[in-house]
Amino acid sequence: MYETIIIGGGPAAVAAGVYAARKQIKTALFASQIGGQSVVSDGIENWIGEEVISGPDLAIKLKKHLESQKDNIDLHIGENVDKVNKKEDGTFEVVVGEDIYETKTVLVCSGGRHRRLGVPGESDFEGRGVAFCATCDAPFFKDKDVAVVGGGNSGLEAVVDLIKYANKVYLIARKPDGGLRGDPVTQAEIMNSDKVEIIYESNASAVVGEAMVTGLKYKKNDSDEEHEIAVQGVFVEIGSVPNSEIVGEFVDTDDWSNIKVNFENQETSCPGVFAAGDVTNSAYRQNNIAVGDAIKALLSAHEYLKKNQ
Amino acid sequence: MYETIIIGGGPAAVAAGVYAARKQIKTALFASQIGGQSVVSDGIENWIGEEVISGPDLAIKLKKHLESQKDNIDLHIGENVDKVNKKEDGTFEVVVGEDIYETKTVLVCSGGRHRRLGVPGESDFEGRGVAFCATCDAPFFKDKDVAVVGGGNSGLEAVVDLIKYANKVYLIARKPDGGLRGDPVTQAEIMNSDKVEIIYESNASAVVGEAMVTGLKYKKNDSDEEHEIAVQGVFVEIGSVPNSEIVGEFVDTDDWSNIKVNFENQETSCPGVFAAGDVTNSAYRQNNIAVGDAIKALLSAHEYLKKNQ
Repeated sequence: MYETIIIGGGPAAVAAGVYAARKQIKTALFASQIGGQSVVSDGIENWIGEEVISGPDLAIKLKKHLESQKDNIDLHIGENVDKVNKKEDGTFEVVVGEDIYETKTVLVCSGGRHRRLGVPGESDFEGRGVAFCATCDAPFFKDKDVAVVGGGNSGLEAVVDLIKYANKVYLIARKPDGGLRGDPVTQAEIMNSDKVEIIYESNASAVVGEAMVTGLKYKKNDSDEEHEIAVQGVFVEIGSVPNSEIVGEFVDTDDWSNIKVNFENQETSCPGVFAAGDVTNSAYRQNNIAVGDAIKALLSAHEYLKKNQ
Repeated sequence: MYETIIIGGGPAAVAAGVYAARKQIKTALFASQIGGQSVVSDGIENWIGEEVISGPDLAIKLKKHLESQKDNIDLHIGENVDKVNKKEDGTFEVVVGEDIYETKTVLVCSGGRHRRLGVPGESDFEGRGVAFCATCDAPFFKDKDVAVVGGGNSGLEAVVDLIKYANKVYLIARKPDGGLRGDPVTQAEIMNSDKVEIIYESNASAVVGEAMVTGLKYKKNDSDEEHEIAVQGVFVEIGSVPNSEIVGEFVDTDDWSNIKVNFENQETSCPGVFAAGDVTNSAYRQNNIAVGDAIKALLSAHEYLKKNQ
């Protein structure tokens, strides 16, 4: 019987793992790989303490830190959790293929995945002009022409971030003129910028380029004719999907399947289950925030274990 | 008129500064120095991403990261904020000696200071056996004899952390037998450990040593006679004092002067003032948690600025 099982391999899971090992809590960690979603980034400028670090280099640093604690934590890298079952006595079964691991608490740090366009070129140019986080990557597009795909709130906020850096920002929105979502101030800021051109009632159909992105193709909602704009960057901002299915049956989630947490201590609706990072209903999707919240989750689990021995 | 003024120089303030600059918010940061409380640590093993890093080296990394953004943030290192005044129009004046800086929002990341014993040797041996954070430093005292000073909750939790590493743990408590505070499970764990010896009704009177700590002197409450125990570590766990005086007049604080925040977004009771880290009523005192919460604070301030232009 483990005291804690940590699910995930991003910065949040690694942080929880390091703290669990140092607290000598009997812990296992399951992850497909170490690094998280930003492992694909060319350069990360907002991992606090590093002026700039590539996604792969950050993953290596995280992995080394975690592995330095391996005497006090069972690391199962390359093993995916299929499901967590809640037992009647308040403990849990973590199902990994044919194997079942028992544990008193579960830390869900399984992250999210960006909702993708699913169009040709999107994956090929990821990290080479295709980006999924304007807060992270806007500064890399100084004086460039870029397109943001997505007329929802995250799309509009990406445009605002990019106005400050880019030469020209196209916004590709499915809705007609007047149908943009997002708060009025953000909308006004976008409307008032002469850098922005909104292409309404349209859907991205392909990302094109050679070594790097050179353009974005799109179609009008009611037509098969393909148009192309010349851009060096494409920000896909059509939402994200939390990896919450593994506990979704017995842990409360919001309308978007994000695990609801108590923001003070990262408890979920189910005693013994804690969550942090992009799998939760936190308003933020940032590596350092996920790290901080995961440490809170682990320290809360530690408290829970003391009280439920 | 600044959009944001960040007060503090620890990891939280640096994180907020980096994000503010990248968001191109017009920002100034005031700090006596960069590094925060852990700048005195010999080795930090729980700064996520680094297996081990000294306090000074962490401070250098933080400073470099912050200075890399200096085109987009006014850095006033070596300048202390004396006071913040709230104006009738909802903006603020930040007073620094003779100078006054106006700003729309304030981020209080001014941290806390450990309450100190104020006995001979305490400062001399800080980082050389005298420690203030068991979660951070317990693993460095493997197989050593240590003393924890403080019979409150943080003292008891320090003992629990140390039981797992140390050879012997003395607890110096002012209260008589039966008078310890802290939750019952923690108390039971301490009572049941044959590593722990509790010295009741006593006060630390001096830390002694040569290159490193070799002992702790104490006196019984009602006596001037000095006793000495041979230890290699002394954990001072008598609470911490938040540096909240600068805004304490118009921002709600709890009974210990910690700034009360909304844990979801780090808002305080005063619109336009946000806080993160050891100056707040967060249950946690950890570098990475302060960093994550400071980024939330900055992103909340960014939202606030958009809505109150």
